[in-house]
Amino acid sequence: MIEGADLAGRSVADAPAAVVGTATDIADGRETEGAERAAFTVQLKSWQARIEQALAARLPPPDVEPTRLHAAMRYSVLGGGKRVRPMLVFATARALGIGEAQVEAAACAIELVHAYSLVHDDLPAMDDDDLRRGRPTCHKAFDEGTAILVGDALQSLAFQLLASDPALPADPAVRLRLTALLAEASGVSGMTGGQAIDIAAPGQQLTVGEIESMYARKTGALIRASVLMAAACAPALAGQLQAALADFAAPVGLAFQIQDDLLDVLADTATLGKATRADHARAQPTHPAVVGVAASQERVRGLHAEALAALAPFAASAEPLRQLADWLLVRSY
Amino acid sequence: MIEGADLAGRSVADAPAAVVGTATDIADGRETEGAERAAFTVQLKSWQARIEQALAARLPPPDVEPTRLHAAMRYSVLGGGKRVRPMLVFATARALGIGEAQVEAAACAIELVHAYSLVHDDLPAMDDDDLRRGRPTCHKAFDEGTAILVGDALQSLAFQLLASDPALPADPAVRLRLTALLAEASGVSGMTGGQAIDIAAPGQQLTVGEIESMYARKTGALIRASVLMAAACAPALAGQLQAALADFAAPVGLAFQIQDDLLDVLADTATLGKATRADHARAQPTHPAVVGVAASQERVRGLHAEALAALAPFAASAEPLRQLADWLLVRSY
Repeated sequence: MIEGADLAGRSVADAPAAVVGTATDIADGRETEGAERAAFTVQLKSWQARIEQALAARLPPPDVEPTRLHAAMRYSVLGGGKRVRPMLVFATARALGIGEAQVEAAACAIELVHAYSLVHDDLPAMDDDDLRRGRPTCHKAFDEGTAILVGDALQSLAFQLLASDPALPADPAVRLRLTALLAEASGVSGMTGGQAIDIAAPGQQLTVGEIESMYARKTGALIRASVLMAAACAPALAGQLQAALADFAAPVGLAFQIQDDLLDVLADTATLGKATRADHARAQPTHPAVVGVAASQERVRGLHAEALAALAPFAASAEPLRQLADWLLVRSY
Repeated sequence: MIEGADLAGRSVADAPAAVVGTATDIADGRETEGAERAAFTVQLKSWQARIEQALAARLPPPDVEPTRLHAAMRYSVLGGGKRVRPMLVFATARALGIGEAQVEAAACAIELVHAYSLVHDDLPAMDDDDLRRGRPTCHKAFDEGTAILVGDALQSLAFQLLASDPALPADPAVRLRLTALLAEASGVSGMTGGQAIDIAAPGQQLTVGEIESMYARKTGALIRASVLMAAACAPALAGQLQAALADFAAPVGLAFQIQDDLLDVLADTATLGKATRADHARAQPTHPAVVGVAASQERVRGLHAEALAALAPFAASAEPLRQLADWLLVRSY
């Protein structure tokens, strides 16, 4: 399962609110911090609205044949999700002084790949999930055959955007680099390879190294690509800064999936009488299951620090990227 | 179902042999024709061997993790198939004086997309086929979850080749054009859109126009892309010749699927006591079912003539392309 916590219905709207400053913070300068976080919340919501609109404009219209496929694609992509990957694209672009309009289609392409992976992942032959984000999964709302085609068509559309979307930088070399990054992150050395290891994992004894390697592929690769693809839209970027962004993105991608495990464990603990989670029921090896909750939390803290350290060469422009890392990796415990 | 006649096990080896000249042809110059056809048979086999090797070299190795996914990808792509699309790529390249090495990776990318569509199409939620080319389908030889991931990973690999394969022309603009052509042919306006119309078709009354539109998408789009992608590798090609190739490719793509229907009908007729074909069992509308066998045959003949007429601006170099059209559209009745 990818990004299982989506199922728990956590949303952007409820998360940053918990860290927004209150009147009692005023004493020791926390007011500034609170104001910054409030501004960040506004920024997140603005980016979410932007990507929603950008995706809606790029998905095939629901009134054109084949209408059922188009409707199912729109159902599967629109109206939900935290949009973590597009936000990483936008925040990286901000750090590099690139406008959001220039990276918007790349953000859409990444989100389409993420969305397709969820549609296929929910199928009966995979995770067999009936609900996602509180709504019936694609194959439940439509049918299995349609859900298979939805995933296939979303992947094609992602690459079509990189090749043809007029909003991206016109330079073919830039677009080709974006295509290479997305294809590599999506395929056997990235997301799909990680999913294949994942579906073979139940009942196996994996080492923590093997679990982290699987996470780095199934979740980390696309997270990493989000940062690198935004950076690729600034082809004149110094190699040192490209490297710094790669050093930021890799630990964020890995930590994001471990954090997801931790949120699941904490949700289990908090919810009395809750049915055992699907991962447990299938003896799915997870990071906290192998090393323990405390060690997983420590690992996330370490990766978070590593990610922030990598951003040292960037000045204030990388603040949204830092805040995003905080929001993804710190906010929930 | 795409290219159902694959299931009937028709192969390159047995087809051209039937039209190779014999000693009795000598009288009226048919010896030359026979010799040409024999040479064409040798050419087809050479191209098939070349694409098999090219695909084998580009698929992920079976001894690297995730081994099961890699093995299933190789199982689904290698060791079978007529390789119609790669042969169209090679024959178009020949017509334009481009070496096979320069278009080989594009041919692989197209064949990977075709192969992924077959793997997903065979799934229980789609056509539910247990056999393809006389071997268990991917989900039977492995499992459904793996088959879903195989299709996903093959599509990613196709685009990865176009972005990164060193054998293709280095010019990013050429590679980007290839990516745009393949993405468009694969997605909602091409193959996947056609499949979506196809799975909604059983029991519906489609007009011949609607059926031809569906065929042009589900089969024709990728056939057409095979010719156009080879042409894209010759970016200096005059617009008139680009247009001529497009005018050749579109009727070939449509006629190829109608011909496939006809071969199925003839196979049914020829085989006493054969179980009703799956298409019939599901009341799948086909071209001959709607207009009759004779009218379908006439339509194929007309499309074949249209395709050959489009090649008029090309001299002898397009001979393999003409022979390919003959082989695909004429040989079997």
